[in-house]
Amino acid sequence: MQVHGPTTVRAHTSSEFKKIALIERALRQGGAHSPAVKLGIGDDAAVLASSGRLVWTIDTQVEGSHFERRWLPLEDIGYRAFQAAASDLAAMGARPLAALSNLALPRTFSDAQLSRLARGQAEAARACRCPIIGGNLAGAPELSITTTLLGVVEKPLLRGGARVGDELWLWGDVGLAAAGLRALQRGLTKRAALRACVERWRRPKALLVEGRKLVGRAHSAIDVSDGLAGDAAHLGRASRVRVVFDAALLEAALAPELLRGAAALGEEPLALALMGGEDYALLASGSASLRPRGARRVGYVERGSGVFLQQAAGRQRLGASFEHFVE
Amino acid sequence: MQVHGPTTVRAHTSSEFKKIALIERALRQGGAHSPAVKLGIGDDAAVLASSGRLVWTIDTQVEGSHFERRWLPLEDIGYRAFQAAASDLAAMGARPLAALSNLALPRTFSDAQLSRLARGQAEAARACRCPIIGGNLAGAPELSITTTLLGVVEKPLLRGGARVGDELWLWGDVGLAAAGLRALQRGLTKRAALRACVERWRRPKALLVEGRKLVGRAHSAIDVSDGLAGDAAHLGRASRVRVVFDAALLEAALAPELLRGAAALGEEPLALALMGGEDYALLASGSASLRPRGARRVGYVERGSGVFLQQAAGRQRLGASFEHFVE
Repeated sequence: MQVHGPTTVRAHTSSEFKKIALIERALRQGGAHSPAVKLGIGDDAAVLASSGRLVWTIDTQVEGSHFERRWLPLEDIGYRAFQAAASDLAAMGARPLAALSNLALPRTFSDAQLSRLARGQAEAARACRCPIIGGNLAGAPELSITTTLLGVVEKPLLRGGARVGDELWLWGDVGLAAAGLRALQRGLTKRAALRACVERWRRPKALLVEGRKLVGRAHSAIDVSDGLAGDAAHLGRASRVRVVFDAALLEAALAPELLRGAAALGEEPLALALMGGEDYALLASGSASLRPRGARRVGYVERGSGVFLQQAAGRQRLGASFEHFVE
Repeated sequence: MQVHGPTTVRAHTSSEFKKIALIERALRQGGAHSPAVKLGIGDDAAVLASSGRLVWTIDTQVEGSHFERRWLPLEDIGYRAFQAAASDLAAMGARPLAALSNLALPRTFSDAQLSRLARGQAEAARACRCPIIGGNLAGAPELSITTTLLGVVEKPLLRGGARVGDELWLWGDVGLAAAGLRALQRGLTKRAALRACVERWRRPKALLVEGRKLVGRAHSAIDVSDGLAGDAAHLGRASRVRVVFDAALLEAALAPELLRGAAALGEEPLALALMGGEDYALLASGSASLRPRGARRVGYVERGSGVFLQQAAGRQRLGASFEHFVE
């Protein structure tokens, strides 16, 4: 863990040494005793002993773009950033090994604030059984948290493996986080019907256990970070197939909390489900006989391209935005 | 490589798909054909086959804190960010394996700008023989580039191994980048005497080959990213020793370009050398008999703590800032 300050000619101040010590202490709460970790926080880089296939990802959350600080406590910002990054390992079916955290902090960020942020990261690291073993501190105009994770997996789940005739599987909820975000943006967080949605946006959970259960069963998988329809498009493009959502099956898979939240927002639950992303559900495809318990069938894979919604009245292509979709 | 956009409820637009394709193309120029790389850009995470000891680091460069866009072309911003991150592997004596790049881009950032940035990253990746095999794109108020690198090494060089009686070794130049940054900050880039310094700040070079040569010879090592005196303090603290710079030896090790640049700035070359960091030189310690050709002796390691400058007239403790130092 090193502090890289702004580009001025100067050495470390004692307050920076204090910051490093503080964050090291907080992050160690996330657990650092993995047999793979040979050297943790405190040197130029972390050292891991590993053999086999490594899965490696990086993800960022930037203030003013991914979140506003008034929307959630710093613990939740740290928690959320870690889980969002971990979700990419879930989508590959990998077991997390360790993480590094890069924190870019505004000058006005206090030590107490830093502790809260790191506490949230450590809490998520513990929940994912993935210690944060190093990282970097930097000054920046806006707060941002960038997390890189390494995991291991024998045979990674890829986006490009979907086959014509596959069932389309959804594991986890979609739409709740999107509804929660809208509630935050509109200042409706006190509405009881929206509480579960707001909570989901603030504290998402990477489906790591579920991802591992898909290994050997699914032909393809992706995590739903950008929106169900958008991530289905990624999967379809990588696999050179058409992805078709069955509206009735998808509606049956929606959480009751989404139905209540959508009603409070005056929005269509199906639209929130298709265009919302940050619940970090898993979308996968595979043979009907191998569908794991817990994964919901929501459609199928056809020859062709694009993403479609099949309703009783007919089929429509899902476009690039919510506005297009409801037209 | 995934695009995570701002937190609005929407799916991918075709312009985002274009951005992903564009950056993939540019980054692939950095070389992606390492036998360790099993899956590169295009899925949720990259996949590597590895065995042995992995060295892992993350580093960031944020607009407004680490650089201003008017100071250097986007190619140089990309190049610089990559080399700065690679320098941590050099300090551990590791051979680079692969990198991931996280780009946070302002809304106004054009595709042409993105291409130039990625071209600089790819150029540095090629120079370091370290392909960029994946990453993440996000929206952000400020441009920032975060790079994580994995390397391999049998026996990593650590900060904490310095022994009393060791020589202190400097490999590479110090102070030039600091002088170059000051020239940029003061708008003096057209002065011939400062040109080499500005160029050094814009295009630093991670001393990867030199770092590997230190393995088996040095007892400790660190890269000089935060300032020579500050990084010596890190090394001394980790090793529980006192680090003493010999002013005469250090002055003899200064580059002629620094002497010219310092004169043009009206600053002390020794102060720029001790407090400047972003040349990414290596500071190491070891036995006199094992000093590698190319590394310069600049001091010694004593019992005690702190960082000192030994001059003919006496010894002074090096404080936390340039201002303290010259007082």
